Parts: sequence; structure tokens; C-alpha cells
Amino acid sequence: MDPANYAADVDGRTGLPVVGMVGAGQLARMTHQAAISLGQSLRILADSPDDGAALVASDVVVGDYRSLEDLRRFAAACDVVTWDHEHVPNEHISALAADGVAVHPSARALQYAQDKALMRARLTELGIACPRWSPVPDRAALRDFGAQVGWPLVLKASRGGYDGKGVWVVGSEDDAEALLASGTPLLAEELVPLARELAAVVARAPEGQGACWPVVETVQRDGICVEVLAPAPDLPDDRAEEAEQLALRIAAALDVTGVLAVELFETPDGRLLVNELAMRPHNSAHWTIEGSRTSQFEQHVRAVLDYPLGATSLTAPVVVMANLLAGPEDVRPADIDERVHHCLARWPDVKIHLYGKGFRPGRKVGHVTALGTSLEDARSRAGAAASYLRYGDPE
Amino acid sequence: MDPANYAADVDGRTGLPVVGMVGAGQLARMTHQAAISLGQSLRILADSPDDGAALVASDVVVGDYRSLEDLRRFAAACDVVTWDHEHVPNEHISALAADGVAVHPSARALQYAQDKALMRARLTELGIACPRWSPVPDRAALRDFGAQVGWPLVLKASRGGYDGKGVWVVGSEDDAEALLASGTPLLAEELVPLARELAAVVARAPEGQGACWPVVETVQRDGICVEVLAPAPDLPDDRAEEAEQLALRIAAALDVTGVLAVELFETPDGRLLVNELAMRPHNSAHWTIEGSRTSQFEQHVRAVLDYPLGATSLTAPVVVMANLLAGPEDVRPADIDERVHHCLARWPDVKIHLYGKGFRPGRKVGHVTALGTSLEDARSRAGAAASYLRYGDPE
Repeated sequence: MDPANYAADVDGRTGLPVVGMVGAGQLARMTHQAAISLGQSLRILADSPDDGAALVASDVVVGDYRSLEDLRRFAAACDVVTWDHEHVPNEHISALAADGVAVHPSARALQYAQDKALMRARLTELGIACPRWSPVPDRAALRDFGAQVGWPLVLKASRGGYDGKGVWVVGSEDDAEALLASGTPLLAEELVPLARELAAVVARAPEGQGACWPVVETVQRDGICVEVLAPAPDLPDDRAEEAEQLALRIAAALDVTGVLAVELFETPDGRLLVNELAMRPHNSAHWTIEGSRTSQFEQHVRAVLDYPLGATSLTAPVVVMANLLAGPEDVRPADIDERVHHCLARWPDVKIHLYGKGFRPGRKVGHVTALGTSLEDARSRAGAAASYLRYGDPE
Repeated sequence: MDPANYAADVDGRTGLPVVGMVGAGQLARMTHQAAISLGQSLRILADSPDDGAALVASDVVVGDYRSLEDLRRFAAACDVVTWDHEHVPNEHISALAADGVAVHPSARALQYAQDKALMRARLTELGIACPRWSPVPDRAALRDFGAQVGWPLVLKASRGGYDGKGVWVVGSEDDAEALLASGTPLLAEELVPLARELAAVVARAPEGQGACWPVVETVQRDGICVEVLAPAPDLPDDRAEEAEQLALRIAAALDVTGVLAVELFETPDGRLLVNELAMRPHNSAHWTIEGSRTSQFEQHVRAVLDYPLGATSLTAPVVVMANLLAGPEDVRPADIDERVHHCLARWPDVKIHLYGKGFRPGRKVGHVTALGTSLEDARSRAGAAASYLRYGDPE
């Protein structure tokens, strides 16, 4: 990196380039936490000073990620800019790059994480197995596709969905009526017979170096990941290898820089189909904080700085992460502190991660990680600790 | 903790008490980093906005730790206050406690880390083995003590020394002339025949729960710790047990809360003598960040919050930490970035920790940690990586 590009206020102090992250959720929060070891202090563009990452970082700019002006103001003091989410308008990312800002991943790569129809088209072009799919601009297109793959099928908003939002299982054309009428660009996918869901998470540096973590099983409930089992239990070696190679190949083909998570369907007959792509640290690799020699957050920072990637070996035979989704009731602040206290007492070797959010119903407010030698044991500890934090009860 | 004591601006958001740390060096930096997982954002009293911890934390107050007014202003928004160093005037800590602030460790405990003569007197009272020692108010006292233990001997400033500062080996009364004349309160200690130095690091919660990490060997050069080997190689089990019990006993007897590091001399005939005490996270336990299931920084936060302590099991058979002391020459910022780059490339499984400081001669600017199964291998990797960062050369 050209020393002349260093932000003036940091140059003489640490000698290290400044990494900016747009978005201040838990991914930015944990990225900042990891970046500190590398001598960094993440510069963050936050929606609000109350965002999870804004609560813990020193160099926070409050602004709108949809505003090119705000993005430019933010990027002016950064050597590299990266993303905590996929919602920054692609043309703004291109504009920053045209200004001379190093952006990782680039607008060209990120479009495939921003638009599911583009992603499907590109992966199909690359010969990578996906569920059968089709854009559905109108009722006739949906009818044709339904006739081809059968009902029910899946409708997805091409843009903007996450955590099960923007995904609908529809049983008939009539079911889709309101969605079609809404004007949201949609694609349809066959409802794949599912053995389980997997994720292959890799990182790729701008110079092309790639590194992967073991493939994991992601356990979903209502379209939201509740638990990650690392490595994926009983996954045959050749299929694990296939998934890792697939993810590295996608990273290279789409020129992804930073972390790429490839969400996969495993079918009962052992096929792997790509479900979604995310080009940032991802919930399916939170277990790497304690479970891998290099966490996804450190790796993402290394990748966007074009530093060499770190070792991804495991620190225990089995690692289980359970998401902490706030329960159906508001929880009084005093009760949260008490729950944390009891949770730490009961499971002294389970690691807690809280995101700085209030426990409002359904919110993803943290996660817990258990390491061990037995899947059953680690899963039971992680699950009970998360449940205790959620409900004040380990069941 | 009484919810009514929560800082008003944090209460409704996270529901967690606010921990303040006085001092903003690398210990506060790494404590903040660890605290993030527990839903915390450390509130920090910094000398300057350029301090290592101030660079990475959001809730920073700039002020003077010697000023009770500044301390009070800082503590007003904290539920608990703890210390990154021993230099806060003891009477100010008492005053904060009298104001109703929970301070950990307390003024009463901390006095033994602030005043070596007090510490020696108290440990002697407890029957804990120390080097023979005496206060030396004047030349006659020094002469008597020298006659008793022989020359050369060690003179120490009772207060304010660290990292070899405030410690002098003197060969005769005449050598000590200037020191005696300076008016600094001094104590004298016998020069102990030394096999090596060890450290026993423990944590203690206010309710009395204690936890210890394995005893380590600390390798010193010019009075500064350059390397830590965990666990201490070839330490007989009974001596390791003795050291751990000693540290836990001191923590309980002095009512220490938070991390306590007990620096020990191991003599050729196998005795353990207490050298120094530190009541805060300590350089001899930086290896716990990757090397233990719970790091000393997380443990310190848990202890001062009166949370139950975490598991201290090791994550690898051998862990070696090497301090990164800047070499004899100023290093250009651009060169530091390049050194980091090459270091990460050559040792992908060595973990780097940089403290946000410029590489000015002799400064402790970071550390590196290597995990492994062989001491020789881990030591060689950690040493070479630190040397590379220091000199641009692994030798």
C-alpha cells in the first residue's frame, strides 16, 4: 500500500493502513474486536451511535450507507473499505472505486451477493449446481416454471432478503398473487428435497490466496440459523472436499475478496446445491472465534488488507455455536445481567458473545460457543447455555 | 448489582453494568477487546487520546489519574472501576470507594502492589518465602543488611518501579551513595541465586472464587520479560502446585479482586521466593489469549463484575509468547506494514498482537504467540516472528 494514501492522523502513529467497514452490526463489532490484535482500529460507518459496533469502536462516523456523499466522507480517511452487509448500492461502491478507494469485495463481486437472479445466472454459467430456478416477471412465467418443477415451490425477492425474509414457499399461482402484484423482482426455485443445510466458508485475498474452514452443518428453524456444528457431522470426506473446492472456485470465479460464505443444500441422494452467497463474515463461521486458529473476522481483515491469510486449523475436535435469539418477551435489563451471571456459573467453558443489543423479542442478540470432543456434549452445553440466556431456563 | 446504579445511558440498551478502567495502555486495550464478547464496552480513563486503548474504545475520558477530581468525573458513569496500572494514588482509590464506587482491586489490596516494603512486610507476616529484605532508610541500615546477606545486593525503590526500572544491583555502600542521597524510599534485598523466574497468575472474584492458569517460566533480558513459556518446562508437579497454591493464598490473604500475577524466583535448590506482585492483567499471562479457554483479560472483567470465573484449561500442550520490543532504530511506518505482511506470510499460525504504538527504540509495542506440541518448535516460531517484526530479520 502506498504510504502516501495513509490517513494523515494514523500514519505516523501505527504505520498501518486504515480499514473502514460500512455498517455497524455485530459483524462489524466482532471484526473490530479481531482487528485490534493486528494493530488496527476499525473505522465504522454506523446508522446510529447505538449500533453494536459503534458502542465499542473509537472511529465511528454516523451516516447513511445509501448516500454516496456519506460514503465518500467516510471513505476519505480509509485506505481500504469493506462491508458489514450487502445493502450498499452497487453503483456507490463503483463510484468509491473510481475515486481511488480500495474496496473489498468489489462492486463487481458483490453484485452476486446483492442480486439472487444475477447470482443464479452466473453460477449456472459456471456449471455450478443450484436448485432449478427461473426469473418470474409475471404470472405466466410462474405458471410455466411450476409446471416444470412442481408445486409447492419457492419464491424469492431478487434483492434485499436475509434471515428468511424475502423467501416464501407458495403452493399455487394464486398464493403468489400478492407478491407478483407488488412489483418486487422475483425468482422462483424448486423446493429441493433436503437432508440438511451446510455452509462452506472461505477467505480470499486480492492476490488470489484462498483458505477454507471445515464445512459445517447449519441447523435452521423458521428460516433462521439457530445452531452451527463444526465440522459437519458424518459428512463423507469426498463431499466435504467437494464443498470446499466449490466455495474456493466460486470465490476465484467471482473475484471475491474477504470472507465468502456459501450456503449449501445437501440432498438425500448426496448432491450439493448452492443456496445463497454472502461476501462478508457470516453467522455460519462465528464458531471460528474460539474454534479455529484464525477466526473469520481476523481472516477478513487480513484479506482486505491483502495480508497473507492465517492458519484455519481447528482448536478442538468439535465446535458448536448456538445463536442467541431473544425470546418472545421483553427482558428487563437487570434480568439479563443475572442470566449472564448464572450462565457463566453453570457453563464455565462455554464462551458468550453479546452484541450490545437489548433483548427484544426475536432479535439476534448474541451467540455462544462450546468446544469439546463429543458432538452430543458440546451441542448440549451450547444449546442449554443459549436457552438459559434466552428464557432464564436451560431447557 | 443494584440496577439503580446502572449508568443511565447504558441501562436500557444492554442491561449490563459499566466497567471502567483507569489507564489506557495495552492492558486496557486487550481488556476492552476481551470485554466486547461479554456485551461490554470498557470505559477508559486515558492520559491522551493516542493511548493504545483510547485508539480502539468508544467510551474514553481524557484525564489525569493522579487527580481525584478527574477520577470522580470518570467513575460517575461506571458501575465498577479497575486499574490498568498501579500508579493511581491509594488515597484516591479509597475516596472513590467512600463515594460508593465499586473498585476492584480495592485500595487496601492494591497498596501491596504499590509499595514493595509493605508487600514484603505483609508476606513475611503471612510466612510466605521472600528474598531476605530490609528497609534501608540510611547508610547504616544498608551497611548492617549488607553484612548480613553479603554483597552485591539489590536495592529497590519501594514505589513506582516496573520493567526493571527502580531496581539496582549494588556492589557496595559507596555504589548506593547517590540513591541513598536521592531521598527515594528504598528497600534492600539479597541477590538470590537464581535457576530461573516463574510466574503464577490467578484470578479472584469478590465472592472469593479463585482460578489459576498453569505456572509459566518468564525469560528476562535486562530486567524485562522477553519470553513466556507455558507451562513452565520441566517444573515438577509438586512445585507447580506449590506455586499455584501460593498465588491463590496471597490473593485471598490480601483480598485481591481481579487478576493477580505473582512473580517468583526459583532457586537452584528448588525453593520458590516471591519477587513481585501485580494486581491486574500481566505480561506473563498474555499467552492466555489464545492459549487458554479463558484469557486473563476476560477473566479480569469477569472477576471485577463478580461474574463466575471461566475455565482455564489450555488449548495446546505448549504456548510461547514473545514480547515485541522495538529495536534500536526508529522504523518507518511503511516498513512496519511490510514487516507485518511478511511475518504473517512466513508464520501463518503465529498470532500477532500490536498495541497501536509507533516502533520507537526499546518500546514494548506488541507480542506474538505460538501454540504447538513441541516447546522447541513453538519457541523458535515465536522468537523468529518477534525478531522479524523487530528487526526485519528472523535471527
